[in-house]
Amino acid sequence: NRVHRIAVIPGDGIGKETVPEGVRVLEAAAKKFGFKLQLDDFDFASCDYYARHGRMMPEDWKERIGQHDAIFFGAVGWPDTVPDHVSLWGSLILFRREFDQYVNLRPCKLMPGVPSPLAGRQPGDIDFYVVRENTEGEYSALGGRMFPGTDREFVVQESVFTRHGTDRILKFAFDLAQKREKKHLTSATKSNGIAITMPYWDERVEAMAKSYPDVRWDKYHIDILTAHFVQNPDRFDVVVASNLFGDILSDLGPACTGTIAIAPSGNINPERKFPSLFEPVHGSAPDIAGKGIANPIGQIWSAAMMLEHLGEVEAGRAILQAIETVLSEPKLRTGDLKGPANTVTCAKAVADALA
Amino acid sequence: NRVHRIAVIPGDGIGKETVPEGVRVLEAAAKKFGFKLQLDDFDFASCDYYARHGRMMPEDWKERIGQHDAIFFGAVGWPDTVPDHVSLWGSLILFRREFDQYVNLRPCKLMPGVPSPLAGRQPGDIDFYVVRENTEGEYSALGGRMFPGTDREFVVQESVFTRHGTDRILKFAFDLAQKREKKHLTSATKSNGIAITMPYWDERVEAMAKSYPDVRWDKYHIDILTAHFVQNPDRFDVVVASNLFGDILSDLGPACTGTIAIAPSGNINPERKFPSLFEPVHGSAPDIAGKGIANPIGQIWSAAMMLEHLGEVEAGRAILQAIETVLSEPKLRTGDLKGPANTVTCAKAVADALA
Ligand SMILES: CC(C)[C@H](C(=O)O)[C@@H](O)C(=O)O
Ligand SMILES: CC(C)[C@H](C(=O)O)[C@@H](O)C(=O)O
Repeated sequence: NRVHRIAVIPGDGIGKETVPEGVRVLEAAAKKFGFKLQLDDFDFASCDYYARHGRMMPEDWKERIGQHDAIFFGAVGWPDTVPDHVSLWGSLILFRREFDQYVNLRPCKLMPGVPSPLAGRQPGDIDFYVVRENTEGEYSALGGRMFPGTDREFVVQESVFTRHGTDRILKFAFDLAQKREKKHLTSATKSNGIAITMPYWDERVEAMAKSYPDVRWDKYHIDILTAHFVQNPDRFDVVVASNLFGDILSDLGPACTGTIAIAPSGNINPERKFPSLFEPVHGSAPDIAGKGIANPIGQIWSAAMMLEHLGEVEAGRAILQAIETVLSEPKLRTGDLKGPANTVTCAKAVADALA
Repeated sequence: NRVHRIAVIPGDGIGKETVPEGVRVLEAAAKKFGFKLQLDDFDFASCDYYARHGRMMPEDWKERIGQHDAIFFGAVGWPDTVPDHVSLWGSLILFRREFDQYVNLRPCKLMPGVPSPLAGRQPGDIDFYVVRENTEGEYSALGGRMFPGTDREFVVQESVFTRHGTDRILKFAFDLAQKREKKHLTSATKSNGIAITMPYWDERVEAMAKSYPDVRWDKYHIDILTAHFVQNPDRFDVVVASNLFGDILSDLGPACTGTIAIAPSGNINPERKFPSLFEPVHGSAPDIAGKGIANPIGQIWSAAMMLEHLGEVEAGRAILQAIETVLSEPKLRTGDLKGPANTVTCAKAVADALA
């Protein structure tokens, strides 16, 4: 019998409400598709933990979750009390780095029942992936401050693009494009302005493209690319981008499909040397935390991606189908989508649709 | 009698078509509002010039245009033959740096007759400025490549934020916000991911805000900020951003208001120690160049901004009004806005509306 060991980390804010609901749907899927889940809860990687221990995670965090098959993550952050660069760099960004989750995979799909802010777009019109580099690039900790506190003060920070890091994310993206119907890849660049690292990125894209003669590819500078997301979102299939550009595009894309509240993501180590981490794109949302009203769909869709990653492809697809069923039904939607459901009733509806 | 000395630089592609039309409207404004223009044409800062001379500009470019009151610029670039980082860094970006045009001011305004890709937005709903830092930040030339051609190859590039450079752009933005009705400033950050330079940016925003108790301000990470541009564009008044973030937001903003073809920009040295440069946001658009079909409105609106900068406030406003009149009239619009006009007839209509 298949058993998957999952480290369950709710984190902060609405993560504490959405993760249990994601687990509810995972358990329903396990029952229906005949696999087993070993679910281990962890309270670290949260500002709660930080408040109690003065650090985001225990020293042995790697031993405690490094042997699991995947991490099911909620959200982290108390932006008003713990600086983001403390909470995030001490948890989520550490996971991405230390577990070499170098692919951040984020689907952008216009779903039934979710009104797009873009005029005249229907479900089916928007359906692409953002493939984001997740370990290097603009998110480096190299740099510092000079002449602090004086008029001459300045800070520098280095972006770092390695051939190793660039080629492997491009390979993942081209492989994905090759498997899809449209076989189309778009690279996000800014080689006209960021004139050292981005021409290098372009160079590696061009080199990689040679191995994929059947994949049609193009590139856009990030500024005009964001414009195209709004004006021509139907043009995209697989969009590959650096850490920062991918971060931007994977909030903008879901916004164009209506709401980031339902958007999922996978932080993936494709070689499976380390556990991959699955989390909604939204954050801890302190403003609505504790009220039971958060939309659980981003968390549940992340569960579906996790199951696909673990080889439970059929179960993953069935969850996505159940999500579509629920979103199509006005009375099953949460308040952010103008429905009467709350976190629990919406998630239960997905579990029911699945069963 | 007031005389303004303008260096006119069409550059490449559609710049050669839109700049003469911008000049047409400038001359109409001069006639109507009783000032004089000395217009001096320059063929450098173009890939045409590069093809003939092997460089983008003559050695004495600074002497030749440094004494003018402003530069009226078209667009530069032959992306298929001259690498962007050669053409742009040898012209436009050099102007911005060497003439210390540290403010890039870009209005985002939904105009009558221009359909927004956003559902349900009307003229008046979207009306804000992006204030972009224009000389430092992520656009630095510091960095390089190590272990070239091997598997260990990597590139690094430094972002540089000085207190001098950061404070002066923030001051410009807060001053602008203070003068506007809503008195609202939004700062673009990414201090949760870009964890050295962006926390510094936040720190300087907080310090500067103390001098503007009457300006309401907030900050958003760039990823969610792009989502808000699409979902809540009515929320913004003055958005201040670093070089890269401002670049992105000032393409995305105009895209949300319908088209970047009509968007103008000013590259401004507020102290008037050097000439400021006014140019449309769009590029040289080689695909439609030479056909006479380019929309001249971005260029003409840039002329309006230039006149305001030169103290011809009334003339600048009158041009903007004439633009609104023309855009409201379906038969005066260019093909990109589904009208029958071409570059020349559209610009003539603006000049007529002005007279
Ligand atoms: C052409 C390019 C270098 C330039 C920039 O990035 O600044 C352009 O996109 C702009 O916004 O003026
Ligand atoms: C919270 C933040 C550090 C993170 C990022 O920038 O990577 C988030 O925006 C994301 O997209 O996962």
